[in-house]
Amino acid sequence: MAHTDELKTSQRILMGPGPSDVHPRVLKAMSMPLVGHLDPEFVDVMDDIKAMLREVFQTENDLTFAVSAPGSAGMECCLVNLLEPGDEAVVCVHGVFGGRMAEIAERCGAAVIRVEAPWGEPIRADVVARALSGRRPKLVSVVHAETSTGVLQPLGEISRLAHDAGALLVVDAVTSLGGTELKVDEWGIDAVYSGSQKCLSAPPGLSPVSFGPRALAAIEARRTKVQSWFLDVTLVRGYWGGARRAYHHTAPVSSCFALREALRLVLEEGLPARFERHRRHHELLRRALEELGFEFVVAPEYRLPMLNAVRLPAGVDDAAVRRRLLDEYSIEVGAGLGEFTGKIWRVGLMGESSTVNHVHVLLAALRDVLA
Amino acid sequence: MAHTDELKTSQRILMGPGPSDVHPRVLKAMSMPLVGHLDPEFVDVMDDIKAMLREVFQTENDLTFAVSAPGSAGMECCLVNLLEPGDEAVVCVHGVFGGRMAEIAERCGAAVIRVEAPWGEPIRADVVARALSGRRPKLVSVVHAETSTGVLQPLGEISRLAHDAGALLVVDAVTSLGGTELKVDEWGIDAVYSGSQKCLSAPPGLSPVSFGPRALAAIEARRTKVQSWFLDVTLVRGYWGGARRAYHHTAPVSSCFALREALRLVLEEGLPARFERHRRHHELLRRALEELGFEFVVAPEYRLPMLNAVRLPAGVDDAAVRRRLLDEYSIEVGAGLGEFTGKIWRVGLMGESSTVNHVHVLLAALRDVLA
Repeated sequence: MAHTDELKTSQRILMGPGPSDVHPRVLKAMSMPLVGHLDPEFVDVMDDIKAMLREVFQTENDLTFAVSAPGSAGMECCLVNLLEPGDEAVVCVHGVFGGRMAEIAERCGAAVIRVEAPWGEPIRADVVARALSGRRPKLVSVVHAETSTGVLQPLGEISRLAHDAGALLVVDAVTSLGGTELKVDEWGIDAVYSGSQKCLSAPPGLSPVSFGPRALAAIEARRTKVQSWFLDVTLVRGYWGGARRAYHHTAPVSSCFALREALRLVLEEGLPARFERHRRHHELLRRALEELGFEFVVAPEYRLPMLNAVRLPAGVDDAAVRRRLLDEYSIEVGAGLGEFTGKIWRVGLMGESSTVNHVHVLLAALRDVLA
Repeated sequence: MAHTDELKTSQRILMGPGPSDVHPRVLKAMSMPLVGHLDPEFVDVMDDIKAMLREVFQTENDLTFAVSAPGSAGMECCLVNLLEPGDEAVVCVHGVFGGRMAEIAERCGAAVIRVEAPWGEPIRADVVARALSGRRPKLVSVVHAETSTGVLQPLGEISRLAHDAGALLVVDAVTSLGGTELKVDEWGIDAVYSGSQKCLSAPPGLSPVSFGPRALAAIEARRTKVQSWFLDVTLVRGYWGGARRAYHHTAPVSSCFALREALRLVLEEGLPARFERHRRHHELLRRALEELGFEFVVAPEYRLPMLNAVRLPAGVDDAAVRRRLLDEYSIEVGAGLGEFTGKIWRVGLMGESSTVNHVHVLLAALRDVLA
């Protein structure tokens, strides 16, 4: 065996599409000695997480908890529980993550009807209406904050259309939760998933999810077992809820400690102040990036405040400049993904990474590198 | 929102079925500031984990990595990648975790042939031989260390029988890895999964897995897509291996830092010394528990050194005594699971929890409580 050294990492400034920087209080929670996954003290931690997630999701949904895996597993959790072979699913695709939802829905045996928009634009409600015409699909799914394109998707009209067609509304809120308004109950969202490592600024590894009463009714009416045992919410909810907690799997205890602390920070700040902070720093960054010759991919009214998708100034070498930012300034910005690979950057201002100083150090470094 | 206090947990002494106590060096690694999940420094961390896991699994398998979720997801990862609808699977069931494998295999659409043994006994090779007679199943699966019963399952004969029948051998090593001999290559194991929180003594949330060449060939010969996108190793391996790392999901960065440090500790001690330590403390505990009137569930030759399944002395109230151990001595021991609920204890001596002092404090507390 070759000798493996002590872990040595650089002190990064995380301004990519997540993970974002983590508050020292959250890092401290990660390093607390463990308790057992069925310890009464851990049950209290789970209850705290559920209560705080309800606040952050703005929902009364009882079945609100954190899947013991990253956001992609949260996506899969929502879809495998709601879809059965032969179901129809209308999946909105305007970036990588909508495409991933379609892929997973197909693996559930669903007949997928794709509703598309060009990358960088939102899904138009009239296109959804056309797809729903004459159909009674099981669900309509859509990405609220497309991390691959920087688009903030309006949900009101799509929610109305979905419910008029008798469908459930499933929303990807991986990048939006805790960074911009997301009203699960008021907007009629039936199932929603997120990630711990974006605007909540906990380490990656947990996926907050919430299922509403219509989604639960659909799950209870299933004719077949959920194809994933690990993600089957009819089993998982016995561990996360109820009078007596039943063992299902071993939750990532330390990651739950961290998420709990991250949620405390979110609620101490308050959602309105937090959303305003994300808008303010987005605006500060936007003005300066445009002066430097970057162009925003998305029209102003649909721009995400926490994920800035920008085309590079002419002549700027994407990979070389990102590498210099990382090596010389220890700043991470995100590369393009999918059809935007090599064409755009994704500059994240998420959670603890949405500060005036993050904006300043990035701009100063960019002025150096591009000079 | 009700005010949520700072996290306050007790300093537990973890002697249940996992998580086990975590070394301060591992807790420190958990609290390191994060780097991005595609940062070159994180790619190095992933490479270190793969290399060290190969040492611990005693394998040359290239596809050796950590699933970004707990052990149950590792189980599901092995089965969903290897099984397709209509496949036959011979599943050995002699406790909760064999039963879980059968359940997952059925959810993959496989025809499951159960080979059973009474709880507390190993699976007999002749019963496996009978089940395989006239069959060419896709795989035979078996639990190496049944955490629900305390049985150490011999694998040599079952491996030979499985391969003679043209089947792959899938092994659950959640509780055995790092605590007792497990020779993946020498024993002909084609796919194996474990957990981070048992004898490796990292926090829960990662599941080390390894796939051998026959398993890879079976995956490449699939006629259908793997039903789980999140666990599809043909996608995950692009993130964990290869010349250029492709984004698949966001790995739990901090948990990977911790697993890396935990593996360093395992290899600094060395596998033979570590296995001997687990045997020694098991023996110390066994003698004293028997003096106190506890009876081991499993015959001596099949006993797990890291998980001691014992029947309580007559008249001892299971739940009340466990609760006193937790409340008055901050010691966690495990309850019985499945058909052993209320009938046995599971006393873990895993990884960092396998020390002479752990044995001593438990015995002293038990003498107090049972006096």
